[in-house]
Amino acid sequence: MLKQIKQDLDAINTFGKNPPGLGITRLAYSPEDLAARKLVAQYMVDEGLEVSTDFYGNIFGIRPGLENEPLVLMGSHLDTVPEGGKYDGTAGIVAALAAVRQINKENISTRYPVGIVIFAAEESSRFGQSLLGSRGFTGNLTAKQIESITDLKGKSLKKILEREQDCLRRKYRPYKPTPLKLYLELHIEQGPILERNNKKLGLVQKIAAPSRMSVTFQGCASHSGATPMGLRKDALVTGAHVIIAVERICHNYSQLLKDGTLVGTVGDVKVTPGAMNVVPGKVELLIDIRSTDMDTKSKAVAEVQNYVKDLASERRLDYNIEILEDQEPIALNNEIIATLADICDEMAIPYQRMYSGAGHDAMQVATKYDSALLFIPCGGGLSHNPRETAEARDIALGASVLQKALCHYAEIL
Amino acid sequence: MLKQIKQDLDAINTFGKNPPGLGITRLAYSPEDLAARKLVAQYMVDEGLEVSTDFYGNIFGIRPGLENEPLVLMGSHLDTVPEGGKYDGTAGIVAALAAVRQINKENISTRYPVGIVIFAAEESSRFGQSLLGSRGFTGNLTAKQIESITDLKGKSLKKILEREQDCLRRKYRPYKPTPLKLYLELHIEQGPILERNNKKLGLVQKIAAPSRMSVTFQGCASHSGATPMGLRKDALVTGAHVIIAVERICHNYSQLLKDGTLVGTVGDVKVTPGAMNVVPGKVELLIDIRSTDMDTKSKAVAEVQNYVKDLASERRLDYNIEILEDQEPIALNNEIIATLADICDEMAIPYQRMYSGAGHDAMQVATKYDSALLFIPCGGGLSHNPRETAEARDIALGASVLQKALCHYAEIL
Repeated sequence: MLKQIKQDLDAINTFGKNPPGLGITRLAYSPEDLAARKLVAQYMVDEGLEVSTDFYGNIFGIRPGLENEPLVLMGSHLDTVPEGGKYDGTAGIVAALAAVRQINKENISTRYPVGIVIFAAEESSRFGQSLLGSRGFTGNLTAKQIESITDLKGKSLKKILEREQDCLRRKYRPYKPTPLKLYLELHIEQGPILERNNKKLGLVQKIAAPSRMSVTFQGCASHSGATPMGLRKDALVTGAHVIIAVERICHNYSQLLKDGTLVGTVGDVKVTPGAMNVVPGKVELLIDIRSTDMDTKSKAVAEVQNYVKDLASERRLDYNIEILEDQEPIALNNEIIATLADICDEMAIPYQRMYSGAGHDAMQVATKYDSALLFIPCGGGLSHNPRETAEARDIALGASVLQKALCHYAEIL
Repeated sequence: MLKQIKQDLDAINTFGKNPPGLGITRLAYSPEDLAARKLVAQYMVDEGLEVSTDFYGNIFGIRPGLENEPLVLMGSHLDTVPEGGKYDGTAGIVAALAAVRQINKENISTRYPVGIVIFAAEESSRFGQSLLGSRGFTGNLTAKQIESITDLKGKSLKKILEREQDCLRRKYRPYKPTPLKLYLELHIEQGPILERNNKKLGLVQKIAAPSRMSVTFQGCASHSGATPMGLRKDALVTGAHVIIAVERICHNYSQLLKDGTLVGTVGDVKVTPGAMNVVPGKVELLIDIRSTDMDTKSKAVAEVQNYVKDLASERRLDYNIEILEDQEPIALNNEIIATLADICDEMAIPYQRMYSGAGHDAMQVATKYDSALLFIPCGGGLSHNPRETAEARDIALGASVLQKALCHYAEIL
């Protein structure tokens, strides 16, 4: 299993491979992403799965059961951020393939069908919105949204789906919507907790949801040499106070939460005009606050907003707060978590229950079907980074747990 | 005089005029800049001046005196920053023209020649270095420097001077280097002091010089959702502390200076990777600290550098400080200042002695010849901004002072 996992990882990661040190760039619906999905679809065909696709470019490989439904589905994604890693999403696809390969090898027959899904467009890098494939799958993406979403170059999602992804629909049969018994996703943690705690698997109880804001301060651009310190309206200094306040406020709220997680980040700053010799007239901050607890998240967001208002008034600058997203955290299914914990105990795998700060396709599927999310460790907690790593043996361990869960839920005959 | 000044301003500012609200873009040595310089050269010819040019594209218009030297020279520049204003540099050229026109009108003969210089390439926007024309004029620009300087698109300064500015050398005679009796420059203040103090003229005693640094912090880029608050190495939060410290340190030192000025600015911040969902791994700050007092400036720079070092050590991040510039402030000639003050008193013009936080061509000329710099107010202290304004009547008042100073130093016969 280990050798096959390494081979699959290498084969998939030939698509979008950048020069050494620059990782993988396999943007959603790009030629590289399409090629990677087609490769895995071929692997599914090779394993005797019935391959189908839907309008969103999601690809399904179904292993029939005695009965036609409900379907026990595993999956993740193959698209990456620019200069991303080899494991984010891909590890889950490779683990699902390994689980099915193992069931085939053992000639197991199940009551219910078992399947793999490659969700398209999980990352937000290209369209500014994430989970497009799984949102389409669960009916959480309206026709109106599809018409309005464009990529960074202004290309319409609708046209991309209609024209560029049409080759999939010509090659594979249309996916026949089937009720799910449950959805299982393995993913790298993308954080440092499992590695620090020396655990091999994390069973996710809740997935944190983001509140995202753009905060703008408008001061007055003026000559950096000719404007005395006391006569400035420096938007950047004001923004710097907010950057520090976001860290302080979110640190405080994360301490208050006994059960769950809260984090807050200013991920980017845009300074206008942004020149050595000009006092910054305008600054825009991108703020991302996430928590598994909606109430605590709302309090932290409100405290940040009040800080921005008070500071703008104190420093006599104009400000604007634009709310970009305000999502609800998702609780995963406790019964499945208990089953997975039992499997780990049986197999003597060191595991822990935990939270996901990152969003995943399981978040979308969980709005409609019972779902579970398994984390494996990643080196140094690094992700969305060319230096992202995960151990093939941890993927194999995860795949074994997936396989046992499949056999349990699809019911061995 | 007022009508002619308005006409000259309008005529020059047809070159490089952007759509409404976007000001003037007349970059150094660009076709627009060349056209503006040629227009003013023609005005010089029309006024009977002997027009000549040098290798740097500086254009001189000389009104002969009874003796050939020393020359009483006035001047400024015509190039602008991108989306700059109509008065930065141009006001000084228009005032010098007005002064010469007035002397012609009054049929005044002088012992020494009187001249106007249009210094080329004063702004740093195109080549990353400022005062290229006046540095060439004063011999402060080496052949080696000319070979190494390129514009933002990689075009070589040497080639631009040799090829694109050659039309000037074909049209006008070569400038014959002449010792200067003194250099006089009128410029808009580019700051708010004259306007706040209700003064019409500022007599500059010292020109502040910048120390410029690029400070980089290297933390660790990680997933903004999956990295707990306590396990981050956020380069941007660290940078935010420095932005605030630069303001605090420079404010303190500016208060300590009894005589002179000190300012400090973080003009731009570059965040890497700079995404909503990634804890910033790297941040670069551009820091500009200027003072009329070298010793105080050095102390402020050292305190900022020590703060950076201590902070990097405390937060366990790597840092780098790159010194980009460290110039000496320039003191202007007290005897000329006293003469200008006498002229203002005679004319009942409200004036004050002051400092220049911005650099000017007079800074370069002062390294070789006695020089003076006169400021006129600009609306709201705004400059390097499409909303930059100055009153034509303030330019006319300044031109009258220039004319009286010319008559004094060139000695009326």
